[in-house]
Amino acid sequence: MKKIFVAIAALAIGLSASAQQALFGGPSVESPVINPDGTVTFRFQAPKAIKVEVTGDFLPTQKMEVEFGGQKMVYDAPGVGVLKEGKGGVWEYTTDFVVAPDMYNYTFRVDGVSQIDPHNMWVNRDVASLTSVLLVPAPGERSDLYAIHKVPHGTVSKVWYHSNTAGFDRRLTVYTPAGYETSKAKYPVLYVLHGIGGDEDAWVTQGRATQILDNLIARGEAKPMIVVFTNGNIACEAAPLENADGYVNPTMSLPKTMEGTFESAFPEVVKFIDSRYRTIAKKQGRAICGLSMGGFHTLYITLNNPDMFNYSGMFSAAIGTGSEQAASGHPEIYQNFDAKLATYFSKKPALLWIGIGKTDFLIQSNNEFREKLNAAGYPYKYMETDGGHIWKNWRIYLSEFVPLIFK
Amino acid sequence: MKKIFVAIAALAIGLSASAQQALFGGPSVESPVINPDGTVTFRFQAPKAIKVEVTGDFLPTQKMEVEFGGQKMVYDAPGVGVLKEGKGGVWEYTTDFVVAPDMYNYTFRVDGVSQIDPHNMWVNRDVASLTSVLLVPAPGERSDLYAIHKVPHGTVSKVWYHSNTAGFDRRLTVYTPAGYETSKAKYPVLYVLHGIGGDEDAWVTQGRATQILDNLIARGEAKPMIVVFTNGNIACEAAPLENADGYVNPTMSLPKTMEGTFESAFPEVVKFIDSRYRTIAKKQGRAICGLSMGGFHTLYITLNNPDMFNYSGMFSAAIGTGSEQAASGHPEIYQNFDAKLATYFSKKPALLWIGIGKTDFLIQSNNEFREKLNAAGYPYKYMETDGGHIWKNWRIYLSEFVPLIFK
Repeated sequence: MKKIFVAIAALAIGLSASAQQALFGGPSVESPVINPDGTVTFRFQAPKAIKVEVTGDFLPTQKMEVEFGGQKMVYDAPGVGVLKEGKGGVWEYTTDFVVAPDMYNYTFRVDGVSQIDPHNMWVNRDVASLTSVLLVPAPGERSDLYAIHKVPHGTVSKVWYHSNTAGFDRRLTVYTPAGYETSKAKYPVLYVLHGIGGDEDAWVTQGRATQILDNLIARGEAKPMIVVFTNGNIACEAAPLENADGYVNPTMSLPKTMEGTFESAFPEVVKFIDSRYRTIAKKQGRAICGLSMGGFHTLYITLNNPDMFNYSGMFSAAIGTGSEQAASGHPEIYQNFDAKLATYFSKKPALLWIGIGKTDFLIQSNNEFREKLNAAGYPYKYMETDGGHIWKNWRIYLSEFVPLIFK
Repeated sequence: MKKIFVAIAALAIGLSASAQQALFGGPSVESPVINPDGTVTFRFQAPKAIKVEVTGDFLPTQKMEVEFGGQKMVYDAPGVGVLKEGKGGVWEYTTDFVVAPDMYNYTFRVDGVSQIDPHNMWVNRDVASLTSVLLVPAPGERSDLYAIHKVPHGTVSKVWYHSNTAGFDRRLTVYTPAGYETSKAKYPVLYVLHGIGGDEDAWVTQGRATQILDNLIARGEAKPMIVVFTNGNIACEAAPLENADGYVNPTMSLPKTMEGTFESAFPEVVKFIDSRYRTIAKKQGRAICGLSMGGFHTLYITLNNPDMFNYSGMFSAAIGTGSEQAASGHPEIYQNFDAKLATYFSKKPALLWIGIGKTDFLIQSNNEFREKLNAAGYPYKYMETDGGHIWKNWRIYLSEFVPLIFK
């Protein structure tokens, strides 16, 4: 038996130095650990560090002032936990509160420099930063939807379509529900749009959308549906590391994101999906939703194609940011707003759903939009949650929206 | 325009602290940078660090001795580059040599503690470690196959099948070549197996297999084919973060990996693929290959199913490690080896391909296997490369093997 064990260890020789260290008797640090009492312990090995902190959205927020372009903005920044050094240079921090069941991002700050948790293999990219992920699932809680369960799983595919607008092939993430491949039925389609700095991966990594879909469908709380995650950066082929431009790090400031080109090109995505998949290729079989910039996109795609979607969801929608006035690409997308709104509602869509956080910096513009709807007597559903412009809310909104569509 | 810019900045408020830092005037560190002269610069910000190093397979190796289970082993460890501190606590190291076009993994060591590059969003998981990725592609070089080009891209899907052997659903990665979805033709299938500690993601992340396939097919150097990446850890549903066991970090020591159960269960994967996809469902339309443990699996799956695969590839195969003698699951898989070998070759397979590195610790057992083949006059193709038991070699072997199959 020993011979085999040594042989297996020898197989590790191709591994990185740190993997070897772990195998060959180096320190084993477990982090994060969800304790039986509901607190969470974070550990970080740094024998020579002076200060190690952890920051993330599991901690209470603190007010922070930033200056940008000469303007001061106050916002709720994530709190900070201070680790204490223990044996072997392993620093440790345990929350003095029960961490509520949810999904969180966190990073360490070692002498002021941000680091992910090297002992946690679950890493998400958040625009141009990497963050470690903490998932605290609990039966009966919403976070249970974010966990993987022993239920039938849909297929998650990276699919390329040719965009005539862009002039090149572009990548989508497509979820086909369990049973799609062995069925002959036609399925409804939900289009899900990301925010600024995001891409076709964001809802799957940060949003846990495919887990939410798997679980809601398995519970019978949502209809089996095809879900398409688009890339709203029409100037790009795909997510930053998945395009032919090579070694380019992601950025917030991509061209052609909120000036009408993506919205005007959207029907070509719908056409592609209807040609590739067994879809219910009419209004009754289509829904669209998006977060932040994607909520802005959702609104204008819906209004400009009033016969295309029966269900639309605006999650913390970035409306009223002024982009509509500065549109250089397809300004017609944003024009005649009131008339388009009247046409849209005259066609009696099944659902317009709006969700936003109480402290979201976009709540005022969303309130103004709702006042307009109220004044005209246009029907919509509204959800207001605690917190601001954060993924925690967008996962909530998706899991609220999905059960309401295609019923 | 300013108003829009501020609005866009405000959208970033939901981002992590480090992303905000980058947006709101924090330090911008570019790393890694491939310089015009072919050297590469690595940077790491750590104002209070005493020593910052970079290690990775782009550096010349150095001999290292490790002790494991009372036995001493000498191996070629990655070299170390020492960074020097500059302005703003940003440490920097530039290679004093041209980094050959290839794909590399690297990590920083900050006061002895391993860290990935926080400014490089390209991170791969290597069993239980995260490593940053450096890709140096060059036209005409093999590494050009690892880069994404503006060529038709295949679809890459995460697909679940039910394993009767395991008793639960298990995950595969499936590549369907560009054109598959719009064609009515039947396609050949290549099954690609990972090494110990790997999973159905390893060949896609570390192996760049889907890029290699896209590019070889686009060049006309490989036939369009379906490629199936299995998970050889039959006790698991999927990759460590993709299964219902929850928050479990990956490990090398998974049960039931080299004791016959996975190999005996392999026909159920083939059956599933033949039922789900338009395949050439016979020996002439099937190939199999694998690295290390996956090469071991490949050999025994091939020998135990002599009518199933026309092409088999053993990459740094972990044969002769003693696992065959200790098999507790399905020992019959490993028995009557010579007779099975005779039967296999009597059926005239189109290709048995063997590749291994000159300094691979498994070269002796591979040589012994080849001597056996030579003595019996059994035909095979052989490739010997520099280096050892490393991904660099496995990418080479895949890109050599794929053009030879289904011709």
